[in-house]
Amino acid sequence: MTTPVTINAESAVKAQFPGLAGGWHYLDTAASAQKPQAVIEATVRAMGADYATVHRGVYARSAEMTLAFEAARRRVAEFLGGRENEIVFTRGATEAINLVAQTWGVQNLKAGDRILLSTLEHHSNIVPWQLLRDRTGVAIDICPLTEDGRIDLAAAERILTPAHKLVAFAHVSNVLGSVLHVEHAAGLAHAVGAKLLVDGCQAAPRIALDVAAMDCDFYVFSAHKLYGPTGIGALWARGEILDAMPPWQGGGAMIDRVMFEKTTFAPAPQRFEAGTPAIIEAIGFAAAVDWLEAVGLDTAERHERRLTARLREELARRNDVTLFGPADSAGIVSFALDGIHPHDLGTILDEEGVAIRAGHHCAQPLMDHLGVPATARASFGLYNDESDIAALLKGIERARRIFG
Amino acid sequence: MTTPVTINAESAVKAQFPGLAGGWHYLDTAASAQKPQAVIEATVRAMGADYATVHRGVYARSAEMTLAFEAARRRVAEFLGGRENEIVFTRGATEAINLVAQTWGVQNLKAGDRILLSTLEHHSNIVPWQLLRDRTGVAIDICPLTEDGRIDLAAAERILTPAHKLVAFAHVSNVLGSVLHVEHAAGLAHAVGAKLLVDGCQAAPRIALDVAAMDCDFYVFSAHKLYGPTGIGALWARGEILDAMPPWQGGGAMIDRVMFEKTTFAPAPQRFEAGTPAIIEAIGFAAAVDWLEAVGLDTAERHERRLTARLREELARRNDVTLFGPADSAGIVSFALDGIHPHDLGTILDEEGVAIRAGHHCAQPLMDHLGVPATARASFGLYNDESDIAALLKGIERARRIFG
Repeated sequence: MTTPVTINAESAVKAQFPGLAGGWHYLDTAASAQKPQAVIEATVRAMGADYATVHRGVYARSAEMTLAFEAARRRVAEFLGGRENEIVFTRGATEAINLVAQTWGVQNLKAGDRILLSTLEHHSNIVPWQLLRDRTGVAIDICPLTEDGRIDLAAAERILTPAHKLVAFAHVSNVLGSVLHVEHAAGLAHAVGAKLLVDGCQAAPRIALDVAAMDCDFYVFSAHKLYGPTGIGALWARGEILDAMPPWQGGGAMIDRVMFEKTTFAPAPQRFEAGTPAIIEAIGFAAAVDWLEAVGLDTAERHERRLTARLREELARRNDVTLFGPADSAGIVSFALDGIHPHDLGTILDEEGVAIRAGHHCAQPLMDHLGVPATARASFGLYNDESDIAALLKGIERARRIFG
Repeated sequence: MTTPVTINAESAVKAQFPGLAGGWHYLDTAASAQKPQAVIEATVRAMGADYATVHRGVYARSAEMTLAFEAARRRVAEFLGGRENEIVFTRGATEAINLVAQTWGVQNLKAGDRILLSTLEHHSNIVPWQLLRDRTGVAIDICPLTEDGRIDLAAAERILTPAHKLVAFAHVSNVLGSVLHVEHAAGLAHAVGAKLLVDGCQAAPRIALDVAAMDCDFYVFSAHKLYGPTGIGALWARGEILDAMPPWQGGGAMIDRVMFEKTTFAPAPQRFEAGTPAIIEAIGFAAAVDWLEAVGLDTAERHERRLTARLREELARRNDVTLFGPADSAGIVSFALDGIHPHDLGTILDEEGVAIRAGHHCAQPLMDHLGVPATARASFGLYNDESDIAALLKGIERARRIFG
C-alpha cells in the first residue's frame, strides 16, 4: 500500500467509498469520514476468517490476532511518530481526554492549580476539565482568539503562570479550521512547567504528525474521522508520563495479580485497557492509517487546502455570506448566509444531494464568542473534488431563491 | 428473522460463520463468540452504503442512521426486558461495571459501607470495586461458594447487613458455568437495602433474560460474547437509578448547554455517552440480537446444556480428569488432566484443530480457591455440535499418549 495516489476531480478515490455511491456530495468529514473499501474489507476479515480474541488464547488463531492487534498499535504509534508502548486504544478522542483528566489530572492537579483551554475548544476538550474542576477544585482559564480565529499564543504567553499545570488546545479547530502551531504552544506550556495536551481529531486526517517534533505531552484523536471504524481512537502520551499514571478502569487484561485484599497492575499501555479491547476496530484503524499514508498526508493537506481556498474564494464573492475562520483554514469552512438559518440551508442542500453540517458543532462557547447560535460548515475529505463545491454553490443559490 | 432455526449436528448453523470455515472446532465462546454472516453484513452496510454520524446531521442519511442507532438501543432493551432509556451503550461489560462504580458508587457509597462480591467473580467484577474502595474507603466482603461451585446464597443471607449497599454477582460463572438464581439474590440484597448488579456476560448469549422478573438493579453484558461486534456492550440500570447518576465522562452529545462557567447535562442515557458513539458496532449488536433471538434463547440454552452434559459425562468416565463446577453447568466445562498443564493441553489440542482456553480465565481468586494455577476450559456456542466434543476427546487422548 505504498503507491502514491493521485487526487483530482477525475480520480478514482470516490469510487473506493461505498458510502459515496450515487453521486452524494458529502461535505461533513469533520463530523465523521466515510470508509474506503480497504477498511471495510479489513473489518470483514477480522470479524470472519481471522476472528479470535487476543492476549489469552493458547491456540494459533488467537496468537495471530494478538500479533495483528499489537501491530495495529505499532502502526498508530508510527503514524504519530511515537513508540508503541505510548499508545492507549480508547473509544475515541473524547474518552482519551477523559482518561487523562481522571488519571493524570486527579493524580497531579489540586485546588490552586490552573488549566488553560481556548475559546475554540470542542466540548470534548472542555467538559472533562470541568468535571475535574468539580472533583479537585482546579481553576480553568480561557485563552482568547486572534481576530481571524486562531488561538492567540501571544495571549497564552501572558496568561500562563507557574500555577498552570496543563494547557489543552485543539490542533485544528473543528469549526474554523484554524491550525495551532503546536511546537510554539508546547514551548509556552513547558516554560511554566505545564504539560500540553493536543486534541488532534481534525489534524490527524489531514496534516502529517510527529509528536516528537511537536514536543507535546498528550495527543488524542479518533479513528472514525480518519476514514476508520467507529468505537476506537488513540491516546498518545509521553512514555514517562503514561508509565506514572494510575489505572482508571479495572478489569481483565489490565492486571498483574488479583487478590481480594490487593491487586497489582500491568504496565502501560495495558494498564489502561481493561476488558476485551476493540479488536476488530483496531485492525480497521490500522487499515485506515495504511490507506491514508498510501495516499499521503502531504497530498491530503494540499488537496484539502486547495478545496478550502477555492470554496472560501467563491463564498467571499457573495455579498450575503459571512465567512468564519482564517484564510488558510485546513479543510473546514464555516459560514453564515444572511437571513437563512444554517439548519434551513442544510435541509435545502440535502434535497440537492449535498451534506453539510449546521449547528453549534459541539463548540457552544465558540458560538457565543462569534455571536451566532450556529454556523453552516462544509468540511472536506480526500474523496471531495470541485464537483462537490459546485453542488454546494448551486444549493446555496437555490436557498437564496427560496428565501429571497 | 423470525423463523426458528433447528440446531443439530447436521444443521447449517456452522456454515453461517466464516470464522469456522475449514472445520475448526472452536470451544472458546466464553472468551468471545464467532460472528454470523448476518452480523458481518449489517456491519458492512453500516460502514458503507448507510454510513453517517448520528444525532447531529441535518441531512437524511444522518437522520436515518440516528433512527437505526436508537432502534439498536430499543432492540437491546427489549432483549433484556428493559426500557430503551435504561440502556447505556458502553465498550463492553467491563466499562459498564466501571461506569456504575465511578458514578453510582462514588455518589452513594462512603467509608463504613460494604459491597458483597463472590469468590467466583471475573476480574471485571472485582477490580472496579477495589478501585472504588481505594477512592471511598468502602469495604468488600466475599460470598463463598457451595461445594459444587455455586454462589452460596445461604451464606450471602448470613453475611448481608444494612451496611451493605451493593451486591455484585455473576449470572453465570465464566469458569464453572454455575448459574445464579438472580431473583433470589435480588431478594436478599433488597431485604437489607442493597442494590444488585449482575454480570451477565456468560448468561446473555445462552439464557432468556428479563430484568423485571429478575428484579436486579444493574445488568451488564458484552456484544462480542453474544455473536456481535467487539467494542460495544450494554449497561442496563433501573430507570430511577440511572436518572439520578452523575455524569462520568464529559464531551459532545452528553451535554445540554456548555459554558466555561457552568455546563448542564443531557438526561440519561445520553448523559453517559460522551463523544461520537460506536455507531457501526451498535448496528452490529442489534443484528446479533436479531440473529440470536431468531434461533431462540430457549434453543440456545437447551443446545448448550445438552453439549455440556455430554462432555461432562465423557470426561467423568476418565480416571485422570478433575471436573470443576456443578453438574448443571451452562455451556462451560472447566477441567484438569492429571499431570498435564492446561497450557500444554491447549497447545496439543490446537494442533488437532480444537480451540479451548487454558489459564486463570481472569478469575485468579477462584483459581486460588480451587487450588490450581489454571484450568482447561471448553465452552460452547450455538455452532458447536457432537463433532466438536469428539475432536476434543480425541485430542485429550493424544495428549495422554504424549505425556504418558
